[in-house]
Formats: sequence, structure tokens, C-alpha cells
Amino acid sequence: MNKANIKLNAAIIIIGNEILSGRTQDTNVAIISNWLNNLGVKLDEVRIVPDVEKTIISTVNEVRKKFKYVFTTGGIGPTHDDITSKSISKAFNIKYTYHQEAYAILKNYYGKDKFNEGRKKMAKTPFGASLIYNPSSAAPGFFIKNVFCLPGVPSILSSMLGGLNTKIIGGNKILSKTINIRTVESEISIHLEKIQNKFKTIEIGSYPFFKLGKIGVSIVIRSTNKKKIDECYKEIVSFLKKKKIYIIKKR
Amino acid sequence: MNKANIKLNAAIIIIGNEILSGRTQDTNVAIISNWLNNLGVKLDEVRIVPDVEKTIISTVNEVRKKFKYVFTTGGIGPTHDDITSKSISKAFNIKYTYHQEAYAILKNYYGKDKFNEGRKKMAKTPFGASLIYNPSSAAPGFFIKNVFCLPGVPSILSSMLGGLNTKIIGGNKILSKTINIRTVESEISIHLEKIQNKFKTIEIGSYPFFKLGKIGVSIVIRSTNKKKIDECYKEIVSFLKKKKIYIIKKR
Repeated sequence: MNKANIKLNAAIIIIGNEILSGRTQDTNVAIISNWLNNLGVKLDEVRIVPDVEKTIISTVNEVRKKFKYVFTTGGIGPTHDDITSKSISKAFNIKYTYHQEAYAILKNYYGKDKFNEGRKKMAKTPFGASLIYNPSSAAPGFFIKNVFCLPGVPSILSSMLGGLNTKIIGGNKILSKTINIRTVESEISIHLEKIQNKFKTIEIGSYPFFKLGKIGVSIVIRSTNKKKIDECYKEIVSFLKKKKIYIIKKR
Repeated sequence: MNKANIKLNAAIIIIGNEILSGRTQDTNVAIISNWLNNLGVKLDEVRIVPDVEKTIISTVNEVRKKFKYVFTTGGIGPTHDDITSKSISKAFNIKYTYHQEAYAILKNYYGKDKFNEGRKKMAKTPFGASLIYNPSSAAPGFFIKNVFCLPGVPSILSSMLGGLNTKIIGGNKILSKTINIRTVESEISIHLEKIQNKFKTIEIGSYPFFKLGKIGVSIVIRSTNKKKIDECYKEIVSFLKKKKIYIIKKR
């Protein structure tokens, strides 16, 4: 990463017993991370925590000081286990109260007669929070300072990220290039380390794969600097050719 | 959770830039968590951290004091970005050195001629660590005190967990029961909260779903106490029937 990106980092806090229990497979990390790559913000840590107020408060308060942006997912629905909004209010020591605009949005969406207590709960945020609009199902997320609270349902979360593009001050887009090869990691490890030591600002990752009974390795080069990626890519490919390692063409 | 399970908790540290970058979808959390449920150990936190030695050391040292068991995944292969074993050694302030048995296993697996530097690296552990055997691809994991280090490839990790069953002192199996219903969360939230308040030792989760264009809610009841689960289940079903909410039969 170049200097401009050093502080442009983020953390995600996934709030939800259902992820920890193994019931539900999280997919929000990859969704948010890929969105952040394009904005030039590097995801540096993820925490998955249970629906426990004390834990949410302490995690939010630790993480929001360490990272430029914090995203939470989950816990902003109408049921008793949805305690994100209240917990964030307590973390910031701010009143947990009806957000006028959120209240109006939800009242309009459901109609006066169907705007019951559960739904009203979804209009509550920490006082002074700004809304993150929800084009899928009305109930908004919110942000306060550097903490952005999103829902847990991936399709709804996805639809809300676009509205945040202008709220995130990013940097140079984080780019990556992948080389898939037909070998095992231990055949390339020594030389790959030498290349990594030469290109200190580039992240080189090596990932074994097993597909349809065939083994291989994906080498991933990652940086905000396209020129450096290309140089590094050339050097790796030249090494692979010298070692007569088969490079898998893209389909 | 009953008292016996209060301290029988665990955390997972997922070590890998590829998860944070959004390139790879983690599936190890669910695999480990479901295995722990059967052993009566509750997964209480997950951290996903990058391949950065300083971060791995500080995370391991924080988490191993807070939880009974810690599992790490990833970073025990032969390449430069595989730094888990070395970082754990530093976290414990123990020498990072060849493990005699691991060395013998790998030498035997690859044969003397093919046992190169990269492969030898996979025989290094913190001094005094115990091995976690690998029935899939030889290279073992290891554990030291309450920290268990497993590989990142899900199929290999999966095949290694069985060997750990006798190393984990667990408690009562964590059980769960799910009721799928055709409604939206806000129709049940108030009453469900009342039931949760009545059954304080039970975890009741409410999760909206959207499948094939149809919406619904899964209510999940979770505890180590089967009798309490059954009582709670009965009470929820009776409330749903009273409210004339459609319960989806299991297929």
C-alpha cells in the first residue's frame, strides 16, 4: 500500500449469535471488502461478536479509535435480539431515541395502521445520527461519527452501500492481479519470498487450491500502484517460466 | 446456557489477507462452530486479522487470556505469507524450531529427495507444541496451551478436527430447535421478547429470510437444556397458533 492509503483503513463488526453458532454463513465481509477496495479503503480487521450489549459496546469503543471507518452488520431489526442501535448509543454515551426522518420514512412505508411497536423500534437511533437509506425495504441504517450501522441481510446491505460512496473519503483504488499455476506451494515458496522482499510495498499472497481433483496455486499481487503490480507480475511470470511451471490461462 | 457451560467458551482467529481482501469466502467459522456445539463449547468471538506478525501476536495474547480455547486458521503452509507458527512462538515467547515428529512425518510423506526448504518450514512449531495430525495432506497443525493452530483450507481443517475431540474438555452439547414461519419479524417481536424474558437461560434468535420470493422468519431456540428448549418451543408455537401465523412444516 502506498503512503496515501496507510490510514485509510476499516474494520467490520459482525453482530449476531447466528453467525457464531454456525447456523448462518456470513457473506457480508466479502461484500463490504470488495466495495471498500474500489473506494481505496483497506479492510484491516473483522470481529464477530454475540448479541450481548456489553460486548458490542466495548468492541465498538475499542475499534472506532483504532480504525478510520467501522462498519457494523446486523441487529437493527424489530426483535428483542436487535440491540445494535441501543448499544451504539451507549457506546457513544448518547441518547437512544426516535429519529424523526426514519420515523417518517417507516410510517409512510407501512401506513399509519400497520406502523406497530416493532416497526417503530426500527426508527430509533443514537441522537444526532445520520441515516443510511434503504432502497430495498425502507428501514434505514445510520451512522454516527466513523461508525456505520448496516443490516445483516446481505441483499439489503448490498443495496445500501451505494448511498455511502460519498460519505467515505477513500484513496487510490486497491488493485489486484492473480496468476493461477499448476504446482504446489513448496515448489515456489523460496523464490516467491525473494520477490516479496524486493517489492516491499506490494502484498503477494499464495493460496493453494483444489478444484475438480486438480491442485494448483493462486498467486495474488495486491497494491494501489498499478505500475508496481505490473513489474511484480512480470518478475513472477518470468520466474515461473524459468522453472517450467504451467500457468493456467484465464477462461 | 446453563452454569456448566459458562466458561466453556472459545474464540477463533482467522489469519489471512485473502479473507479481508474479499477474495476468499471464509467457511471455517461455521465448520469449527458446529463441531464445538457438539462438544458443548460455545464460540463467543471471531477475529479476522491480516498476515501481519505484530497483529497476530497481540490478538493471540489478548484472546487466549479471555477464552478457554482459541483456534487459529490459516498461515501454516510453506510460503512467505505463512507466519502463524512463528508469530505464535513469539506470542508465547518460546523458541520457533523444528518439531522432531512433524519433521519425520513430512520427510516420510514427501520422501528424502523432495523434502525441500519450503516443506521443512511446515515442520517448525513453537518449542514444546503438540501436533494436530492431518489425515488429508500430512502437514500437521499444532497446539500449545489453549491455542490450537489449524490450516486455512476448509476440507483439510475439517479432516483434522476429529483428532482434537479428546483434547477439548467440553460440556453439555449445545442444542437448538428452529421454527420457520410465514410472517415478518415486526408481527411477532413484542410477544417473542416476552417469551425471551420468561426463559432467561435460553437464547432465542429471530432471523428474517427471503427464499424464492417468499418471506418468512426463522425463530431459533438455543440452549444446553433440552427440557427448557421444549418448554420454550411449546410456548412459542402456542403463541403463533393464537396469532394464526403459518408454521412451515419441515420438508
